[in-house]
Amino acid sequence: MTAKLDESAKGIYVIAATPFAENGALDLTSTDRMVDFYLSCGVEGMTILGMMGEATKLSEEESQIVTRRILGRVAGRVPVVVGVSNPGFLPLEQFTKFAMGEGAAGVMVAPISTLRNDEQITGYFKSVCDLLGDVPIVLQDYPVGTNVHFSVPAIEEIIDKCPQVVVIKHEDCPGLAKLTRLKQGFANGAHRRTSILVGNGGLYLPQELARGADGAMTGFAYPEMLVEVCKLFARNEAAAGEDLFNVYLPLVRHEMQPGFGLALRKEILRRRGIIASSFVRAPGTKLTRDDHNELDWLIGRLERKLNDREAAPAKVA
Amino acid sequence: MTAKLDESAKGIYVIAATPFAENGALDLTSTDRMVDFYLSCGVEGMTILGMMGEATKLSEEESQIVTRRILGRVAGRVPVVVGVSNPGFLPLEQFTKFAMGEGAAGVMVAPISTLRNDEQITGYFKSVCDLLGDVPIVLQDYPVGTNVHFSVPAIEEIIDKCPQVVVIKHEDCPGLAKLTRLKQGFANGAHRRTSILVGNGGLYLPQELARGADGAMTGFAYPEMLVEVCKLFARNEAAAGEDLFNVYLPLVRHEMQPGFGLALRKEILRRRGIIASSFVRAPGTKLTRDDHNELDWLIGRLERKLNDREAAPAKVA
Amino acid sequence: MTAKLDESAKGIYVIAATPFAENGALDLTSTDRMVDFYLSCGVEGMTILGMMGEATKLSEEESQIVTRRILGRVAGRVPVVVGVSNPGFLPLEQFTKFAMGEGAAGVMVAPISTLRNDEQITGYFKSVCDLLGDVPIVLQDYPVGTNVHFSVPAIEEIIDKCPQVVVIKHEDCPGLAKLTRLKQGFANGAHRRTSILVGNGGLYLPQELARGADGAMTGFAYPEMLVEVCKLFARNEAAAGEDLFNVYLPLVRHEMQPGFGLALRKEILRRRGIIASSFVRAPGTKLTRDDHNELDWLIGRLERKLNDREAAPAKVA
Amino acid sequence: MTAKLDESAKGIYVIAATPFAENGALDLTSTDRMVDFYLSCGVEGMTILGMMGEATKLSEEESQIVTRRILGRVAGRVPVVVGVSNPGFLPLEQFTKFAMGEGAAGVMVAPISTLRNDEQITGYFKSVCDLLGDVPIVLQDYPVGTNVHFSVPAIEEIIDKCPQVVVIKHEDCPGLAKLTRLKQGFANGAHRRTSILVGNGGLYLPQELARGADGAMTGFAYPEMLVEVCKLFARNEAAAGEDLFNVYLPLVRHEMQPGFGLALRKEILRRRGIIASSFVRAPGTKLTRDDHNELDWLIGRLERKLNDREAAPAKVA
Repeated sequence: MTAKLDESAKGIYVIAATPFAENGALDLTSTDRMVDFYLSCGVEGMTILGMMGEATKLSEEESQIVTRRILGRVAGRVPVVVGVSNPGFLPLEQFTKFAMGEGAAGVMVAPISTLRNDEQITGYFKSVCDLLGDVPIVLQDYPVGTNVHFSVPAIEEIIDKCPQVVVIKHEDCPGLAKLTRLKQGFANGAHRRTSILVGNGGLYLPQELARGADGAMTGFAYPEMLVEVCKLFARNEAAAGEDLFNVYLPLVRHEMQPGFGLALRKEILRRRGIIASSFVRAPGTKLTRDDHNELDWLIGRLERKLNDREAAPAKVA
Repeated sequence: MTAKLDESAKGIYVIAATPFAENGALDLTSTDRMVDFYLSCGVEGMTILGMMGEATKLSEEESQIVTRRILGRVAGRVPVVVGVSNPGFLPLEQFTKFAMGEGAAGVMVAPISTLRNDEQITGYFKSVCDLLGDVPIVLQDYPVGTNVHFSVPAIEEIIDKCPQVVVIKHEDCPGLAKLTRLKQGFANGAHRRTSILVGNGGLYLPQELARGADGAMTGFAYPEMLVEVCKLFARNEAAAGEDLFNVYLPLVRHEMQPGFGLALRKEILRRRGIIASSFVRAPGTKLTRDDHNELDWLIGRLERKLNDREAAPAKVA
Repeated sequence: MTAKLDESAKGIYVIAATPFAENGALDLTSTDRMVDFYLSCGVEGMTILGMMGEATKLSEEESQIVTRRILGRVAGRVPVVVGVSNPGFLPLEQFTKFAMGEGAAGVMVAPISTLRNDEQITGYFKSVCDLLGDVPIVLQDYPVGTNVHFSVPAIEEIIDKCPQVVVIKHEDCPGLAKLTRLKQGFANGAHRRTSILVGNGGLYLPQELARGADGAMTGFAYPEMLVEVCKLFARNEAAAGEDLFNVYLPLVRHEMQPGFGLALRKEILRRRGIIASSFVRAPGTKLTRDDHNELDWLIGRLERKLNDREAAPAKVA
Repeated sequence: MTAKLDESAKGIYVIAATPFAENGALDLTSTDRMVDFYLSCGVEGMTILGMMGEATKLSEEESQIVTRRILGRVAGRVPVVVGVSNPGFLPLEQFTKFAMGEGAAGVMVAPISTLRNDEQITGYFKSVCDLLGDVPIVLQDYPVGTNVHFSVPAIEEIIDKCPQVVVIKHEDCPGLAKLTRLKQGFANGAHRRTSILVGNGGLYLPQELARGADGAMTGFAYPEMLVEVCKLFARNEAAAGEDLFNVYLPLVRHEMQPGFGLALRKEILRRRGIIASSFVRAPGTKLTRDDHNELDWLIGRLERKLNDREAAPAKVA
């Protein structure tokens, strides 16, 4: 039995891909291997069936199979958050019940794309919380993906009214000032403290950790780096953390191309031997020969830098 | 066994609501009554599980139940088109197979909301057609709902490359010039002729029929008027058709308020004794007391005008 | 010297077109004639250089010429509001000073299109009000044109913080519930009362007047109807008001096609002998032969109905 | 007299800021110093009054003053492109004439934000080219800023029909595949070759140069790096180029936060002694104390890395 998600969530909650075989079917063997890999990286949690998990391209039955398989494999070692965003409340509620019944630690909810102002946004989350009872909720603030724009007061109102919202997945951009304001509202006692886990592929992770983010919820294909950076920041070794981050930054940036990053991410996981195929379900992007060559180049450079770092005596920037 | 949909589609294809009970469950008795009502209005066809049918708020199982029930009730008397739009190809394909297996005449496909230019749009429809084989397709051009903008050349390219697309559901606005251009492309032989059925709640129906639309695919709560207007235009009695249309125009306009019209439409169907409840599933709009009073007023005025027309000797405007 | 605009604004504030000659130059003779026409219709005020006034297509100098000409011609007989919306504060401030110096009663401000939440919207209007001092302001709530979405609380906060905002130009759609909520906030004393003038081409005018709108600020090409409808509603003759409105409704609806209505509106004004040319500056829509024929038909029908009404004894619907 | 811009444009065309004094007025002394700085960095050209130049916040007169000042200071040493984007054709044409008369090498045009499909986009550029005659044009493909989405065929049609379009400012994202396709169309002779200069703050510059981009048109506050990277790639020293780029990548990424980058960029230019004030005109972002501290950190790290590089013997990654 997994503990429920709460505001103490920190470190890296990796966004899991959903592995497919070359024919597009679920690949549960790769799924197991991917789970093992993530756990071996030291992630603090896992989030499945988010946008990066191609959730909308699965049938209901497939969503259940993937959820059950991953929860079974994780077996309570880390909390697993399940993405349940849905345009309708009934399917959202049904899948939440299923996921929690299987041992999920909480669910992630992105707003429907028709919400246009603070009142509609806060109203939506209040209704979702009424619907889901005491299930812990990760609120996803990701305007590029949802076309919904949260103000700081809107998030704070949701925090005030919805005790179930325990984690903010913060991936508004620019978002550094927003993060600071949310943290100030916690620090001065104006609002209940939640965990804030950042997204955006980790592109601003060092700056966000310096401003008080609790960690990241993102799917960068080298989660071991994200884990290590979080640890270094937690030990007040920000310069070392940022040095490490910057070794990977060219790839972090490369993966952050919206609508294209998922294909890159799956391909890197495939190259690393974690999943058998980089297949992305339609509609989706396919990598070209140029894309592959570019990835060869960037990965080759990364590996040389990592070798150089190992060979060299540690130093602080 | 229903005949397959083809480019001869004309007249009114009513967009069916999905009736719920007050507790939100499917109301299949009302569904039957609604089907009977639509048929009694003389509609030429029916479209189910479109946006107005709250398709995204149903579970997969419910979608199957509704589809089977309506197809069974219609029993081949008119062609039934089933909305199958889905962000993923796999669920789209699966539900299409189900619907066609149950006797649907074709399916309606709206594009996913991330398509941003002609090439992406035409590519999407070519892929959908490859996926669905010889299933007849209604292409839905509805920018307000999908955020996808079809140019005339993009539609024409789809028509040229995808023989399965036999009906264009045209609800771009302003869209009169677009309709004329499509018809010209058919008339001068540049492109295969499809049926063009207009939407937008019928707000521009007389002008669109005058410009050559084959009919309308819309859910206005008085489909008998739409049917009659189409007949009058078909008999070259445009003035009489427009006179009749204008009697209902205040309500046509009232129902056309985006995101609010569905609640009004269901309420009118309820008042007319067709469905038992006007329940709209969450997330959705609820009518206020003011909304009800306003509807009383508008319906009262309509009924008096209809009485006046019956009492008066026919005249041509 | 014109009186300043205040919350007593009511009736029809007609949105003035900007007349051009066939070669695209300002046509000041037509401008004078248009002003005279509007005044003869009994409008309570005039708004110039709004979106319908093609404000962004004029040079700074032309904007000044038009403003001076119209203010001179009106000569204080009715208040004139000048549209000053601008992506930059400096040009916005400079033109406001010019317009007020020439005798404007106030200015209309639409928000810049990058505002994404309540806080940004209210912040923007607070900054504009700080900038403009005690100049009376019409806030334009027109999401279709600005891509900015005002919640009721955001408008109320602006009303509370910005005493200069004396009129809300309300053209959100659906907007009836929003109008009712704003009026309730005034009625129960929670917020300072402003005038609410509706837009959207007047498409919902009878319903909006019934819900307490003070009038309309719109450019429908038959402003005499709008004036009369407002008078009838003010005399509690709603049914007569709505009867009159409905005679024109086919044209109201026809003009309300976004991005196309301006060309129709100018063409009707030209046919009525008010402006010499229906020229719309580039980029803009041009009417086709079909568009002209359609207008012939709709105007012909309108004129016959008006004749019928005059011939018939008055009756209440 | 400057040579006109043509398809041979390559290297770095720096996007110039518009320097203001602390009171918001134009600061022409800083403007001169900025021009001298850019030239000393070895830029191949300069682009003024783009989005980063706060063009929409200047009065017409100020735009002329800035244009004249910069063109005078540059004095033909490099080509200067002037941003002339405008919602109206008349102001667009008038300012183009002014700029070309002052010695500009060409103008940059971003599409108006209402264009929704390929045909509207290509139609717009054809009309602009008809309007401007033989003035060389930079087409700005920047969806994040304009909300206009160019397909490859749309750009190619513009290239085919509009010989004046000699440079594509490419800042769609993801955009690597688009760049490759455009280059292929040039290489195989299907379309006239134009220069392609990339934007997006240079975030993908090494990958874009490797795919055949001719350079960049961007405003990163260390243009000397961009210039050097272009030179290294031109000498086939891609690894060295990417090594140098990556030293600055943390700041490139930091500046690329939309709507916030301009304030950072001006502040860096101020710290480098190039402009007297980092003032950004309203509406615009102001840096907080945290923002300043973050910049201290990132710049401090950059400077140490640059020192390390100078101290170390050159090596190839």
